[in-house]
Amino acid sequence: MNVKQYDMVEFSVEDAPSVAEFWQGEERVRAESFLKAKGDYAVRFMPDALGEWRYRIGEKEGSFGCVPDEGVHGRVQEKGTHFCYEDGTPFYPFGTTCYAWTSQEDALVEETIFTLKTAPFNKIRMCIFPKHMPYNHNEPPYFPFEKDEKGEWDMEKPDFRYWDRLDRCLSALREMNIEADIILFHPYDRWGFSRLGMEKNLQYLRYAVARLSAYRNVWWSLANEYEMVTALSLDDWDTIGRFIAEKDAYHHLIGVHDWVCPFPKKKWLTHASIQSGEVRRVAAWKKEYGIPVIIDEFGYEGDLPFGWGNLSAFEFINRAWSIAAVGGYATHGETFHREDEVLWWAKGGKLYGKAPERFAYLKSVIEEVGALEPVSALPQDPNGNDGNDWVRKLVEGFPVREQWQMELCFAEFYGRNEGHRILYLGRQCARYLELALPEKGEYRVEVIDSWEMTRRTAYEAACGKVRVELPAKEGMALLVTRLSGENL
Amino acid sequence: MNVKQYDMVEFSVEDAPSVAEFWQGEERVRAESFLKAKGDYAVRFMPDALGEWRYRIGEKEGSFGCVPDEGVHGRVQEKGTHFCYEDGTPFYPFGTTCYAWTSQEDALVEETIFTLKTAPFNKIRMCIFPKHMPYNHNEPPYFPFEKDEKGEWDMEKPDFRYWDRLDRCLSALREMNIEADIILFHPYDRWGFSRLGMEKNLQYLRYAVARLSAYRNVWWSLANEYEMVTALSLDDWDTIGRFIAEKDAYHHLIGVHDWVCPFPKKKWLTHASIQSGEVRRVAAWKKEYGIPVIIDEFGYEGDLPFGWGNLSAFEFINRAWSIAAVGGYATHGETFHREDEVLWWAKGGKLYGKAPERFAYLKSVIEEVGALEPVSALPQDPNGNDGNDWVRKLVEGFPVREQWQMELCFAEFYGRNEGHRILYLGRQCARYLELALPEKGEYRVEVIDSWEMTRRTAYEAACGKVRVELPAKEGMALLVTRLSGENL
Repeated sequence: MNVKQYDMVEFSVEDAPSVAEFWQGEERVRAESFLKAKGDYAVRFMPDALGEWRYRIGEKEGSFGCVPDEGVHGRVQEKGTHFCYEDGTPFYPFGTTCYAWTSQEDALVEETIFTLKTAPFNKIRMCIFPKHMPYNHNEPPYFPFEKDEKGEWDMEKPDFRYWDRLDRCLSALREMNIEADIILFHPYDRWGFSRLGMEKNLQYLRYAVARLSAYRNVWWSLANEYEMVTALSLDDWDTIGRFIAEKDAYHHLIGVHDWVCPFPKKKWLTHASIQSGEVRRVAAWKKEYGIPVIIDEFGYEGDLPFGWGNLSAFEFINRAWSIAAVGGYATHGETFHREDEVLWWAKGGKLYGKAPERFAYLKSVIEEVGALEPVSALPQDPNGNDGNDWVRKLVEGFPVREQWQMELCFAEFYGRNEGHRILYLGRQCARYLELALPEKGEYRVEVIDSWEMTRRTAYEAACGKVRVELPAKEGMALLVTRLSGENL
Repeated sequence: MNVKQYDMVEFSVEDAPSVAEFWQGEERVRAESFLKAKGDYAVRFMPDALGEWRYRIGEKEGSFGCVPDEGVHGRVQEKGTHFCYEDGTPFYPFGTTCYAWTSQEDALVEETIFTLKTAPFNKIRMCIFPKHMPYNHNEPPYFPFEKDEKGEWDMEKPDFRYWDRLDRCLSALREMNIEADIILFHPYDRWGFSRLGMEKNLQYLRYAVARLSAYRNVWWSLANEYEMVTALSLDDWDTIGRFIAEKDAYHHLIGVHDWVCPFPKKKWLTHASIQSGEVRRVAAWKKEYGIPVIIDEFGYEGDLPFGWGNLSAFEFINRAWSIAAVGGYATHGETFHREDEVLWWAKGGKLYGKAPERFAYLKSVIEEVGALEPVSALPQDPNGNDGNDWVRKLVEGFPVREQWQMELCFAEFYGRNEGHRILYLGRQCARYLELALPEKGEYRVEVIDSWEMTRRTAYEAACGKVRVELPAKEGMALLVTRLSGENL
């Protein structure tokens, strides 16, 4: 038998729950079985190394070959404050949000998959449990578990119809190279899944990890808005994080999405998954966390009567560029009111907004430019080499809150790597700007209109101080590309 | 002799500096003389009570009558977190900024006055000392003082040409009912006025107070960007504030404009004069200071290569509405690049932007609605009566910075008084909103488009819960007016 590299292979297990082991050379992977259908257990495995793998499942031993699969890059992993696939290919998350799409009727699930096929998104935030909230009044076709005779959720009784469909969804996403950012808990609940108690929580997680972790495109998001899941304490979240990190042999990415207070740094936390419209803090968060920062919710394009769901497309894209310019990552969501209550952000379906194509354009720019790090605005430079020490001294005398405010006052949406600089001007309507390029070398300077999705070359090959004429409108960016000479 | 109420009367003093006294009944006003021309001293006085005033200037005694002046309301004074004239007429500051207009050539000064005649502004921020900065490279025609034989500024040698012209400017402003928010110190200086030393500072202030305080339309702004005047410490500013408060018999308003750290509360501080684009903090500042809050600088409409001077007209007006809706006051400024370097913000001249007419529209709304107080957003209500105590408890567990961030997350641009509510929606593009009006009574609900300057009546006389349809665009506001029933 041959299995494609990074693909999932499944073995039936006839008996009671058991633990399987897969090995190749020094590498050993432990996999727990899970109840796949009534009375039938299964074990899943994802081989990451080519060549022969041996395994032992209960009493049974065997082997199979792992063969290359063209265009497949493996799991996404964090690397510094960015991401890459296992084979080193960079991954720049441009995700979207369909919280409850796997809890909708089949036709809608299919429509969502159809939409995703041509959408720009390479990650999707999605819950296991159904969602209760405005525009989410329908009952899901299936729940992940069945109830016991006392009417309480029974973690030993998975509803196979739910999980089989989730399998189909995850496979479809994997096929489309979309990472499934699976939200394990969330507060918007009328059924009790947010108040199961820790014992049932861990039973559920054990099942989810055993069943889902062999998908190469799985990420674990412990929560949507962890603070709002009031039954769980910070210690509980830590327990859950450690549990997943230990059980998941594949070390998939682990994030925790917040309501307003970004989840504290933990050893098992692989990236910051932040809800905030305060895009001026992204550079500081990158420094503070030292891991990738995804602003997984910064307001959705839409027209709802709620502040979190009624950004103009322009403001949505403005925030996305602000985040991306300093090397953070932005996640999409769309919430246009519909009488049928099928809003992309929760149920999937169709996209109606003007943001996605512009989000795709931003993605194409970042894919061209590569991973960015923020260029510190004046008062944040810790080296004191900018000749502006007096600013720092001045600020030290301020109350703490105003010191923090300074960071925001001086935040620029300015990022760099060796070969590029991007300065996103946001709502600034400058008529011209002066740029200080290295004195020697050739640097192309382009002016990007983030809304019109156009770029114009201001200088084919400039160096030193240059003045760039701009159209004095919002949403402009400067892109500098090194053709020769010093790094940028 | 008769003098109009709140007008200025001036007496020549032949001899050396002397102190004059003016009295009527219990009220006694002390006025110092100042050098008006070479060898000639003068004393100025502004009567606030009608009827006979007696005075003693040196050896000379006399009296005059004070008679009413129709349409003149006296000095502007703080009243709670708002302002009113001495006669009780409310004053809603809608100011502008022309820092160095009195340091320009005569023709330009006249042009500025001409522009102000039809502009909506009722306050103007203006410096005594000239300004050095980008777009401000010209030498002023006159300096406020002359230099001594050692080449240092001599506070005993006022340049009368400067002060005579300043008198003409202040009179012209008074004529137009524009308050002169006189900035006494500022950092943008190549001549040394920001580094005179405290002795000369106080000499200068003594002169300014003696000469200018009898203008009813004078306000004292101790500084533009006090932190940036690095020669002066917080203690120095306190000394200056106390000095002015003591010397100015008319108790004109005293503010201190900041760079990023709002000036701390002081007994002599009559209003907070804040520089900040963070308009979500206005409600909190009102609570913190308990005096009027003017956001005297929140970004100017313009197209300069500097973040402080390149807001779109839309964003300028967006911020102005955000400030006004919670009962703060917004100050205008305009900075469109011009090759002749005559920018309104510094030199006056003409206005070119789209903001002023919309600022005038906002002013007309506030004049109709009256003084507003912020409607607290959920987590800020200190009474715990909103049933959302769990939010407060949750937030108490957050790091301090995130607690502050909460304030901003939940800030709404929502203000009220007995007869009105204004909810400004800013960049939110809601398609509809639900409003909870009192259950009984009649309340008119209007939808205002802050950019188009239009209003549409959604309900002539509604009560209870109402749904208001909106055009799902930025810059909309709801205005509720009580026609009968409970206060709003």
